[in-house]
Amino acid sequence: MTASSQARLRCYDCGCTYDHGDRTRCSCGEPLWFDLDVDEFEWPTETAQATEQDPATTGIWRYDAVLPVSAPETTTLPPGSTPLVRAGALDSFAGCELHLKPEGQNPTGSFKDRGTAVGVAHALDTDTDWIGTVSHGNMALSTSAYAAAAGLECTVFVPADIPPERLDLLARHDPHIFRVEGEYGRLYEETLALDTDGDAGITFVNSDTPLRVAGQKTIAYELLEQFRLESPNAPSSPGVPSSSTASTASTAPDAIVLPVSSGGQASGVWKALRELTRSGVLAADDVPRLYFVQAAPCDPIATAFREGREEVMPIDADETIAVSIANSDPPSGTRALTAARDTDGAVVAVPDEATREAMDRLATDAGLAVEPSSAVALAGVRELSDRGEIAADELVVTILTGSGYKESVETEPRSRHIDLADLEHELASVVES
Amino acid sequence: MTASSQARLRCYDCGCTYDHGDRTRCSCGEPLWFDLDVDEFEWPTETAQATEQDPATTGIWRYDAVLPVSAPETTTLPPGSTPLVRAGALDSFAGCELHLKPEGQNPTGSFKDRGTAVGVAHALDTDTDWIGTVSHGNMALSTSAYAAAAGLECTVFVPADIPPERLDLLARHDPHIFRVEGEYGRLYEETLALDTDGDAGITFVNSDTPLRVAGQKTIAYELLEQFRLESPNAPSSPGVPSSSTASTASTAPDAIVLPVSSGGQASGVWKALRELTRSGVLAADDVPRLYFVQAAPCDPIATAFREGREEVMPIDADETIAVSIANSDPPSGTRALTAARDTDGAVVAVPDEATREAMDRLATDAGLAVEPSSAVALAGVRELSDRGEIAADELVVTILTGSGYKESVETEPRSRHIDLADLEHELASVVES
Repeated sequence: MTASSQARLRCYDCGCTYDHGDRTRCSCGEPLWFDLDVDEFEWPTETAQATEQDPATTGIWRYDAVLPVSAPETTTLPPGSTPLVRAGALDSFAGCELHLKPEGQNPTGSFKDRGTAVGVAHALDTDTDWIGTVSHGNMALSTSAYAAAAGLECTVFVPADIPPERLDLLARHDPHIFRVEGEYGRLYEETLALDTDGDAGITFVNSDTPLRVAGQKTIAYELLEQFRLESPNAPSSPGVPSSSTASTASTAPDAIVLPVSSGGQASGVWKALRELTRSGVLAADDVPRLYFVQAAPCDPIATAFREGREEVMPIDADETIAVSIANSDPPSGTRALTAARDTDGAVVAVPDEATREAMDRLATDAGLAVEPSSAVALAGVRELSDRGEIAADELVVTILTGSGYKESVETEPRSRHIDLADLEHELASVVES
Repeated sequence: MTASSQARLRCYDCGCTYDHGDRTRCSCGEPLWFDLDVDEFEWPTETAQATEQDPATTGIWRYDAVLPVSAPETTTLPPGSTPLVRAGALDSFAGCELHLKPEGQNPTGSFKDRGTAVGVAHALDTDTDWIGTVSHGNMALSTSAYAAAAGLECTVFVPADIPPERLDLLARHDPHIFRVEGEYGRLYEETLALDTDGDAGITFVNSDTPLRVAGQKTIAYELLEQFRLESPNAPSSPGVPSSSTASTASTAPDAIVLPVSSGGQASGVWKALRELTRSGVLAADDVPRLYFVQAAPCDPIATAFREGREEVMPIDADETIAVSIANSDPPSGTRALTAARDTDGAVVAVPDEATREAMDRLATDAGLAVEPSSAVALAGVRELSDRGEIAADELVVTILTGSGYKESVETEPRSRHIDLADLEHELASVVES
C-alpha cells in the first residue's frame, strides 16, 4: 500500500514538481512536500493492536498508504499511537470542550519521533549510513535516538554555547555533535545545500524537510481517526470498516491548535487535512480550523497574520521561556500562514505569563507535565476563546508536542518539614484542613 | 467482568485471608495481595485499540477481569500499552534473544503508573479524597500526577534531605510534600499503620500495597499477551479468539528479568504467572523463570538467595547509582525471594560498572535512555548468561522500568567545536573517516 519512495516533491504554492533528492525547496523559494495526494483513502480496518508489533497496524505506519516509505522490519522505538484524551477539568480554563494529544508519550518524549522515523526508514531504504539534523532540542534528541536504534551514524549541529544539560541529554545516544560557532540560524540553509548536493552521503531530516513533514502529518491522521472513533455517530465497534457515510460533521473536531516554530508540523497537519479532503474521507465543510500559536517574544508568523501580509519575514526576537519554538526566521512560515488562512483559522501569539499559567494548569489539573513550548498551545486556546474565535461548545484538539520532564524547572513546592514522630498529627492537620 | 472491590486479601505464604481495608500485612508478617485467582481467564478478544478511549480495551484495563477495581470513566493519563520490542542489536551483549518492555513510555515515564492508576481508581470508587505515598522517585511523581488528573488531593513523604531537582520534579503536580526528618526507612511502616487505622481518610499506595501490586501485575499480563501474538504458533490475526491449544510452549518467553527493590513489582509479576497458570492459560511447563536483579551495593534479596536463606533480612547498604532500587529492608523481599525460587529463577546483584555499561549500550545500540535502576536488569541478563543460567537461544523479556530522561547525567560527548565557515569540510572529515 505504501506510496513509492520515488514519489515526486511538489510546491504547495506554485505547483512545481521535482524528484525527491534533487532539492527540498522550490525554485520559488517555498518548501516542498511529497506529492502523495492519494485519490482514495479509507481508515484502516485493522484495529491498532497495541499488543502486536506488526508495524503496518501500529503507530505512524498505520497510515503507510500515505507515507513515502515503508516501516522498517523492526525497531525498538515504535513512534505514534499516543492517546487522545478528554480534559474536562480544563474546559472552563480553555473555554471549549478540550481534547489533548500528549505527544510526550512518544519514545523520546516528543512529537519529533514521527518525522524522525520516516527519515530513518528512508536512510535505511537507500543504504545511507548517516543521518543528521540541525537542532539542540527535541529533534536532535529524537534523531540521535532513532539513529542509534537503527544502527546509523548521526550528526547533530548545535550552537557553540549550548547549555551543558542539553548537551548531556543528546550525548546519551552518542551522536557526533558539532558545536557551531557563527550564526546558528544560517546552519539550516547550509545543511540544505549539503543535502541537495548529495555529496555529503547523509540524510538531513531538518524541521520542515519533506521526509519529516510526511511523518509529522500522521499526528493529524491519528487524532482524526481517534476522534472519529470517539464520536457518537461513528462506528463504535473495532473492526467495523469505515464507510463514507461515517464521515459526518460530528466525527471531526471544530479546531486543532498547536504550537508553531519552523512551520514544519503545521504544514504536516494541513497536508493531512488536504489529503483527507481530496479523498473524500473528510467533507470540505468538516475540515477543522487550524490555529497556530507562537510565544509573543518571538512571533514572526503571528505578526504576518496580524498584519495581513502574504509572506512571513524574519524578525528581531526577544527571549522566551518557549525556547523550542523560538524561530525568528521560520523556513515554512509562509506555508503555515497559508494553512491557517485556508482553514479559516489564525496564528496568534501569547505572552510568557500565559504560557506559564497554562503549563501549571496542565500539570495540576490534568496531570500532564509539558514543556513551555507545548503549553503555548493551551494558552493560545484560551486567548482564542477570549476573543470569541473559539466557542464554548466547540470541540478542540490541542497538540501537546513534548514532555516537560526532560528539562528542569524551578518550582515553589507546597512542602513542610516535619519530624517522623509527628507524622500522624502533621498529616491530620493537612487532610482535615 | 471486573473482580469485586470487596475482594479479600490473602497471604501468599500462610494462606490467611482478610477483608481489604483491614490491613495490608498478614499476622505472620508477610505482605498480602488480592485474592483474585480467577479460575477461568481468556485473553481479551477485543483488540487493543490504541485509537479508542474505551478503557476496557486499552492499557491496564484490558485485564480488568483480574483487577480489584474498574476503570475510571475518563482519564488524561491512560496507563499501560507500552510496546514489547525486539532488541537484536543487544543479543550478543545480553547472551540471549532479547526482548525489551520499555515502561518509560507510560504517562509519567515509569512502570509505577500501572499501580497508581489502580490506587486512584479505588480512591474514586470509595469517595476517598486523599491519596498518598512514601517515595521520592518514580512512585511519588506518578502518584502526584494521577492525583492531579483525578482531582484528588495528594501527600508525598520524602526524606528531609531530598535533592532540589527531585523536589522540583514532584512539585510540578503540586502535591502536599512532607519532608520528613528521622529514619526514612521507618516511614513505610508508619504510613501502613495510618492506612490500616482507616482514620487518616487517605489511601496510601506504597510500593507493595495490594492495590499497587494488582496494578503492577498487568505488566506481566501485557507482555505475555504481546509475546503470544508475536509467536509463530499463536493466532496472528487480530480478533481471533484465544483457545487453550494456542497456549503452547513457544508462546511464552523462557525468562522475565526485572529490577527488584521493595519486591512489589516482582510480586506482581509472580502473581500474574500464578493466575494464568491456575486458569490454564499458561501451562505449568511454560511458566517463565523469574530473575530479579539488585545493585550489588544494596542487595538484601540477592544476599538471601545466595546464602540459601528462607527470609530476607535488612542489610547495611552502600551507595549505588541505582538509587531508585536502593532498599536495604524490602517489605516484600521474602515474597520476591520465594517467587524466584518457585519459578526456578534467581536473584542476582550487579556492580555499578556493569549497570553503567548496560545503560550505555541501551542508549547507543537500542536508542533507549533508561535510568540506572532499569539498566541493572540488562546487566543482570548478561551476568546470568555468563553464568550459564540463561542460554544463547533463550527468549528473554527484560523490563525497563523507567525513562532515563527525567534525571540529568554527566556524559562525555563526541563533540567538536567548529566554525560555520568550515561546515562542509568538517562534516566530510567525520563522515568519510
